[in-house]
Amino acid sequence: MSQYPFEVIRARDAMRARAEDLRRDGRRICVVPTMGFLHEGHLSLLRAGRARSDVLIMTLFVNPTQFGPNEDLDRYPRDEQGDLRKAQECGVDLAFCPTDMYPEGYQTTVEVHELSKPLCGAARPGHFSGVASVVTKLFHVTCPHVAVFGEKDYQQLALIRRMVADLDFGIDIVGMPIVREADGLALSSRNKYLSDEERKQAVSLSRGLAAARGAFDAGERSAEALVAAAKEVVAAAPLARIDYLELRDAASLELVDTVTGPVVIATAVCFGNTRLIDNTVLTPPSE
Amino acid sequence: MSQYPFEVIRARDAMRARAEDLRRDGRRICVVPTMGFLHEGHLSLLRAGRARSDVLIMTLFVNPTQFGPNEDLDRYPRDEQGDLRKAQECGVDLAFCPTDMYPEGYQTTVEVHELSKPLCGAARPGHFSGVASVVTKLFHVTCPHVAVFGEKDYQQLALIRRMVADLDFGIDIVGMPIVREADGLALSSRNKYLSDEERKQAVSLSRGLAAARGAFDAGERSAEALVAAAKEVVAAAPLARIDYLELRDAASLELVDTVTGPVVIATAVCFGNTRLIDNTVLTPPSE
Repeated sequence: MSQYPFEVIRARDAMRARAEDLRRDGRRICVVPTMGFLHEGHLSLLRAGRARSDVLIMTLFVNPTQFGPNEDLDRYPRDEQGDLRKAQECGVDLAFCPTDMYPEGYQTTVEVHELSKPLCGAARPGHFSGVASVVTKLFHVTCPHVAVFGEKDYQQLALIRRMVADLDFGIDIVGMPIVREADGLALSSRNKYLSDEERKQAVSLSRGLAAARGAFDAGERSAEALVAAAKEVVAAAPLARIDYLELRDAASLELVDTVTGPVVIATAVCFGNTRLIDNTVLTPPSE
Repeated sequence: MSQYPFEVIRARDAMRARAEDLRRDGRRICVVPTMGFLHEGHLSLLRAGRARSDVLIMTLFVNPTQFGPNEDLDRYPRDEQGDLRKAQECGVDLAFCPTDMYPEGYQTTVEVHELSKPLCGAARPGHFSGVASVVTKLFHVTCPHVAVFGEKDYQQLALIRRMVADLDFGIDIVGMPIVREADGLALSSRNKYLSDEERKQAVSLSRGLAAARGAFDAGERSAEALVAAAKEVVAAAPLARIDYLELRDAASLELVDTVTGPVVIATAVCFGNTRLIDNTVLTPPSE
């Protein structure tokens, strides 16, 4: 349960001053960065953060620098009032909803070089530079001991873990499992863009990943074969346009030929203008 | 005067844990980052830091990532014992001398894009990426309220101010004036590389800047004329090879044609393999 009256802060200076006071009082701070339009996936992150902290901060900011020029920044769904109500119900103490993130003359970015290149990084140039930079700023103004991110954005989570270790942020990064609809579709704020028919076919992502997992559980260790098993299912959806579907090392995201340690199969699939992502981690049993 | 027994810390984790304890105790922390081989310029930064803090941390690390492949990393002068003695005499409480700055797989950099391009950034590709990244790491492990840098590395100071504002570090950045030899040569750890004859001619940097300042005080406002006044003096030194000598806006470092606000004249001059820098800020009197 929350120990503080729920509060909304909009200025970076005020947020930072409050966070520094809380730390000086010995409070353990958790931050959950979000772009709002909260669904059950987000709420699972908030609950995980609530269980790990004295003070739970949710940030709500649709960050323009992580959207490409032809992406969906303008139509990205927003519902601040609904989000604040849900956050409060999950025990959030403080919502940081900044209105002044980028000062005049802003020109600094944080780059996580290798982890930014493949998968979504190849399809969305500049996306992970925007993510790493805004997360750095949000960490600096909220001064957390722990931060919670979803495993659905697998590459983002891997990259933030790397950034935190490389730049000595001293923040504990917690990843939480993907939350899915009953039929397997991973929850996403972008699912609302889907037509009825696209929504039906969108289940092909999770089913494709499940097919690969089935082959893996049956002993298949060839990356090519595992990827083919997943692709066959996704490609059977007439409206699906595969952006990528790849098997990579779970930590370095380097390509793998034969599975000998933890790997991730990650995919991005477009239905019309809507781009969905999903992934599953495969870990060989220890011998 | 120092309030704590002098201490040397070499591990990032231990430094961060100590800094977090000090902040929780309400202590005001100042950090002075150095590459060691301390001269009076460094000592002036330490004294300034001492006057502005409860706990004064000096970092001592010759950072490999800010040296180019053909630069002087290997021969950069080192004297840890002498540095620690001088630091203690200036009231430093804690020296952070890291031995493990870059973990395996390190791949993250901080880029201050526009301010890294001209002047030393043009001559030393990657230098300011290395500086911004290591300063970020040093800030994260020492958790300072205030940090002190010298104005001799003018572009570095401008870039760190920008980075701190852009990424919301919440650290007060203090710049301290250049300390000079009796004849005007700016103190630098690299002055020891100079032969006797080079040392004599090295005074041409400060004399050239003084000539420009003289012209400015006499009313000259043309950048071209001010730069020419300085270059004439420097070029008269037979061993001097000018890398750059430019007049730029004091904050943005953009080129300026006519001086209407604060500007910096900055120069880098090579004597043999030794590259020296110097600068002076010119501020038109308010009308």
